Amino acid sequence: MVKTLEWGLDGTLRLLDQRNLPFETGYVECQSYRQVADCIKTMVVRGAPAIGITAAYGMVLAAAEAVQDDFYDAPDGDTGSVCARVEEQLAAAAETLKAARPTAVNLAWAVDRMLSKYRTKRQQVSEWGELLRCLEEEAQLIHEEDVLVNRQLGILGAELVTPGDRILTHCNAGALATGGYGTALGVIRRAWEVTGDVHVLVDETRPRFQGARLTSWELLQEEIPHTVITDNSAGWLMRRQELDIVFVGADRVAANGDVANKIGTYSLAVLAHENDIPFYVVVPSSTVDLALPSGEEIPIEKRSPAEVTEPLGSRVVPEGTQALNYAFDVTPNRFVTGIITEAGIAHKPYTVTLQKLLG
Amino acid sequence: MVKTLEWGLDGTLRLLDQRNLPFETGYVECQSYRQVADCIKTMVVRGAPAIGITAAYGMVLAAAEAVQDDFYDAPDGDTGSVCARVEEQLAAAAETLKAARPTAVNLAWAVDRMLSKYRTKRQQVSEWGELLRCLEEEAQLIHEEDVLVNRQLGILGAELVTPGDRILTHCNAGALATGGYGTALGVIRRAWEVTGDVHVLVDETRPRFQGARLTSWELLQEEIPHTVITDNSAGWLMRRQELDIVFVGADRVAANGDVANKIGTYSLAVLAHENDIPFYVVVPSSTVDLALPSGEEIPIEKRSPAEVTEPLGSRVVPEGTQALNYAFDVTPNRFVTGIITEAGIAHKPYTVTLQKLLG
Repeated sequence: MVKTLEWGLDGTLRLLDQRNLPFETGYVECQSYRQVADCIKTMVVRGAPAIGITAAYGMVLAAAEAVQDDFYDAPDGDTGSVCARVEEQLAAAAETLKAARPTAVNLAWAVDRMLSKYRTKRQQVSEWGELLRCLEEEAQLIHEEDVLVNRQLGILGAELVTPGDRILTHCNAGALATGGYGTALGVIRRAWEVTGDVHVLVDETRPRFQGARLTSWELLQEEIPHTVITDNSAGWLMRRQELDIVFVGADRVAANGDVANKIGTYSLAVLAHENDIPFYVVVPSSTVDLALPSGEEIPIEKRSPAEVTEPLGSRVVPEGTQALNYAFDVTPNRFVTGIITEAGIAHKPYTVTLQKLLG
Repeated sequence: MVKTLEWGLDGTLRLLDQRNLPFETGYVECQSYRQVADCIKTMVVRGAPAIGITAAYGMVLAAAEAVQDDFYDAPDGDTGSVCARVEEQLAAAAETLKAARPTAVNLAWAVDRMLSKYRTKRQQVSEWGELLRCLEEEAQLIHEEDVLVNRQLGILGAELVTPGDRILTHCNAGALATGGYGTALGVIRRAWEVTGDVHVLVDETRPRFQGARLTSWELLQEEIPHTVITDNSAGWLMRRQELDIVFVGADRVAANGDVANKIGTYSLAVLAHENDIPFYVVVPSSTVDLALPSGEEIPIEKRSPAEVTEPLGSRVVPEGTQALNYAFDVTPNRFVTGIITEAGIAHKPYTVTLQKLLG
């Protein structure tokens, strides 16, 4: 299976360039945290858990850059200066990486975890090479944990699927959006493994077509039956009862269970509710932001209008017409049937259940 | 202003090729009813009222073809044979034209009106040339009536708009979809004329981008402020109260007020209802099918999956992935705030009010 991101022994982060999928599988190599931030911003890599992991490796690169720079600048080795340099660099990297995309909380979560690891290890380790190895191990741990968590999410979520179910998913919450396996798509993967009898309806997910391009690509590789639909069709399929259950990922879940996810998710949740179709959100605990009381406070990224006006690079609106491009929306908790985390499935009232499971 | 369709003195129907808008304004010329049917099917011309008018002219061409053919076949002029030929041809044309697209009732309505005119005139007129002129006049009348009706819809609908309103519309229900002026877009046009202070949010309308391509093009020409959004964004803008009122056209309204319209309309109506935003349907009476008790019986066209898999001609899904493409959906009457017709605005219960206004 193609890997979304790979940390090389040579200290290079290789990112699958998701902008060109499914037709080209090229990689972008990052040797600096700035390159990493740029790849997150331009969506070479996307998906809340995946950009968290990517940012963690970005922090490793930041530290390595500082140590390396200093090594060349001051070959006689002034430890005090290296220390100041590394800390300054990590602070700058943390800020740049967090700012790359504002909505997904995993980015901040992973960066803060790396900073925390640095602060702990700095007290214990005297040699820069060893400290770098500790940071590298922490990033790898974040990566590995995510895959394990995804597997657990899959096991828990698949129990909600009945053989024959027609499952809707939005955007891409698969291996490409995570360390591997996937959140919402991990549940679908597992349900397919267990039942051998599901059909996936894939929202194409305008403006960037992550469903049409990425989710279908993942499903094809495992020969899971699927059909792409326009985002416009999902409500109608619900109304026709041609759809049994919805699984989506998320970019941030507030303490009260409000869910920020790819634009269009709110509409799906309202429509599922209207048609008595279960609507589940599948997230690692790193996506749950217990510090945020409600979805009102989640920053919602607006992206370039060109994503709307130039689908696949071809202009569709006349010159002079403007576009508005919210990348995410927030679904109020009352439309969410359940939130599947690795610690268990939370139901309403989420303020209580999420705290209990993850607090 | 560019004309959607034009009947030439030489007996040629010129149709603006809407497939290439907004970047090319080319015309397709039709000299036979089969060409007309083909243009309707391939969406050279689209929009319920516009395809009704087009089909009416198609019936004129059908009659002219039959008379003409016979003129050449039997130059000595056997009126009985011409009569049989014309009737056979009109029956065939009626069937072909009606089958071109199944959902919009205006197509059948216009074709039946032409057949009815033929049957009446055949009794009264002995000369074929004169009978053709009668049919031509009837088609032109259907065309002219539609424009007048649109103006009336605009006047009635604009009264519902408050200065400063942010108005959402879906697909294209403008001059391009009608004989001129437009239904939903006619209301918006009129509201702009009256208030000079509206902002139009234009759903791009996947898969064929009629909003992005056509509605924005019409709005630009009259310098009406507007912004294109993805279909995915409409619900979120409603939730944020960045949108005040919705006007859409329709392809068929059943006697109980259920509304068939472009795919995605059902979702918008549910979302508007959820967010207490008025949702109006704007139609000429020719779109109201009082013979149909409810929307359950409206035939819903499925179009080629390629419209989904190849946006603007570029493939977006991997080889092997299928797509499903319902072109329309049906909105249950309870989500419709009002149905604006030229005879007045109907409110619930529509079974009573539509019958009273239009029966």
